[in-house]
Amino acid sequence: MYRLICTGCGKEYPGDSPAFRCGCGEPLEVLSNRGSKRFYPERQGILNCFSSFLPPLKDESSLSMGEGWTPMPRSFAFVSEFDFELYLKNESANPTWSFKDRGTYLTLLDAVEKGYKGFGTVSTGNMAASVAAYGARMGMNTTILVSKGIPSEKIRPIAIYGPRVIKVDGDYSELYRRTLETGPSKGIYFSNSDVPMRVEGSKTIAFEIYLQLGEKVPDFVIVPTSSGGNIRGIEKGFREIKEAGLSERMPVMVAVQACGCAPIHNAFDSGWEKIERVPDPSTIAHAIENPFPPSGNAVLRMLKKNGGLTLCLKDEEILEAQSRLAGEGLFAQPAAVTSVAAIKKLKELTPLKKVRIVSVITGSGLKYPSILERHSLSVESISIGDLEAAL
Amino acid sequence: MYRLICTGCGKEYPGDSPAFRCGCGEPLEVLSNRGSKRFYPERQGILNCFSSFLPPLKDESSLSMGEGWTPMPRSFAFVSEFDFELYLKNESANPTWSFKDRGTYLTLLDAVEKGYKGFGTVSTGNMAASVAAYGARMGMNTTILVSKGIPSEKIRPIAIYGPRVIKVDGDYSELYRRTLETGPSKGIYFSNSDVPMRVEGSKTIAFEIYLQLGEKVPDFVIVPTSSGGNIRGIEKGFREIKEAGLSERMPVMVAVQACGCAPIHNAFDSGWEKIERVPDPSTIAHAIENPFPPSGNAVLRMLKKNGGLTLCLKDEEILEAQSRLAGEGLFAQPAAVTSVAAIKKLKELTPLKKVRIVSVITGSGLKYPSILERHSLSVESISIGDLEAAL
Repeated sequence: MYRLICTGCGKEYPGDSPAFRCGCGEPLEVLSNRGSKRFYPERQGILNCFSSFLPPLKDESSLSMGEGWTPMPRSFAFVSEFDFELYLKNESANPTWSFKDRGTYLTLLDAVEKGYKGFGTVSTGNMAASVAAYGARMGMNTTILVSKGIPSEKIRPIAIYGPRVIKVDGDYSELYRRTLETGPSKGIYFSNSDVPMRVEGSKTIAFEIYLQLGEKVPDFVIVPTSSGGNIRGIEKGFREIKEAGLSERMPVMVAVQACGCAPIHNAFDSGWEKIERVPDPSTIAHAIENPFPPSGNAVLRMLKKNGGLTLCLKDEEILEAQSRLAGEGLFAQPAAVTSVAAIKKLKELTPLKKVRIVSVITGSGLKYPSILERHSLSVESISIGDLEAAL
Repeated sequence: MYRLICTGCGKEYPGDSPAFRCGCGEPLEVLSNRGSKRFYPERQGILNCFSSFLPPLKDESSLSMGEGWTPMPRSFAFVSEFDFELYLKNESANPTWSFKDRGTYLTLLDAVEKGYKGFGTVSTGNMAASVAAYGARMGMNTTILVSKGIPSEKIRPIAIYGPRVIKVDGDYSELYRRTLETGPSKGIYFSNSDVPMRVEGSKTIAFEIYLQLGEKVPDFVIVPTSSGGNIRGIEKGFREIKEAGLSERMPVMVAVQACGCAPIHNAFDSGWEKIERVPDPSTIAHAIENPFPPSGNAVLRMLKKNGGLTLCLKDEEILEAQSRLAGEGLFAQPAAVTSVAAIKKLKELTPLKKVRIVSVITGSGLKYPSILERHSLSVESISIGDLEAAL
């Protein structure tokens, strides 16, 4: 059995502990066993490819839907000549079209192994769809808790998977905390945004980047950051690659937020020890609009320890990047494009000549179609008789 | 240089011919060179993995976005105990979330190699998005012709890639034909639904199925069928596997259409030599709503030759299958779920004990969100104080 360790105070817990957070309030993570490990890229699926880096989970019920092993095409739209190399880790090619499926899959296996009959999460977007889908695949009673104000067009693509959907009138962070506390006694495994096994799922993004770059670690990895679970997982993945002796160095981790909701960036930029709640969050990048992220302090500690950076983007910058990224073939949701929108500002902070950058594109543009009304898109009209003249 | 052959009269053309259809009116296809070939699954991307089965295309500009190699999870929702094995070839995990990307990628390489400066298509859905995305990646002038009546919410996810979008008032089949005729003189490669290199792209679905089943050919392959290009490609892939000596048999190909627009099914069922135009097409499965498919006759010939089958589904059956498929974790668009909706009817036509079936899930449920209004989806509401009692 693996062990868990608190990212804050370092206290250890057994892996079968029902707690996902330490008594000190900070998130737990899976304690990596040191030593030499290897990858099995010839095997199918993230669980088998990366088994030597993951806790001993088994998929006896064929619950995998082929999450992970997403493409990483090279980008040209954000790069000028003689500049750096940029790669787009396209997580929209997952079964529910966001990076969440990696962590959801591993948390589901963990839940099954621990004998839970219920599965659930607190989310209004990518995570809700992912948890609803994987819970459905297992045939579990799945509960999705969403905010009171969420519109029907956001609920339907979650509800179609058949979970119990409950709108809750109350504070989101409070709901996050209370579900983790209440879940075990109710027999519900709450696969919330930064629970330990979800962070293990995000590690696999780092492993794939390393393998897709020909067993090399990039110089920068830019990650849209909300709860903080994803960037923690990716950093942990690179840390374990280094600890396994497969690389001598770590990438600079860049946490990107929307300026209208940037609790981690605000704290990092101001040198605070802890994050502070953003009173009135406002951004078009809803998928990273968490005013008081549960892994906020853990991300702050991680960035300070490893020489990471933070940046924030304005809505106009996000829209411009969405358009420019689509203009080279990849249509991503606003939150997801912050990782490429950030490049211009990153250039101002640090020289980027001859470096290798990976931007994580966290989810599909189809997740948030109404944002397209904010783009000016032109359409012509002709009759078929005028076709030759028009072409 | 490869050669093209007419699927109707057998006349041959050189591969660099600007024509995609024969003088007799029927579609051309790439003439396969016979003999032993092999797969390279250890290589990256469909072009490299399947090079010995594809025309000699090169990707010197890094135009791939990681199309293909989609997952194929096993399905349980449509299978009762002691029954057949069912696999879902999930094409929604492509860069623009439909199977179209395979063919679009190969046609783009073909266009670049032939010196075209323009790229385009006639489509209102998956193909338009795919062609717009890949055209954008290459930086080509891309023209997307859509029907006059198409609503803005369908145009925007195409227009975001930055193509020239033209609404055309006129008959769709006529537009299809005229773009193929006019394209070469205008310097525009029209990557329409059944052009030869697009059919080559669909072949790679067959290759992946074969490899994902452990180098085995399934008993049945069920394909949602509109223009006919995709099922032609998949059949051609299995044919080439057999010709290469890698399998002794072919799967039964099952073409599925919506009953409200079933020109191929109608003709096959009635024993007609040729398809007839459906006068008033009507179905929720818009992505397969082609009343006079350009490869309709070619599909008829193929099915007759190889012992294939056709089926049609009513809208209620499609909606029910969409819900049931999401109920095991895969949310697909209405057209895409016809390949699982068909299973119940297939059972009535032929015994399915101990056979292996692959249903091709052609595109993402996020492509057509408004259909979700047709499903009855329930949502509860509570206040946070009632959370414990509610769980």
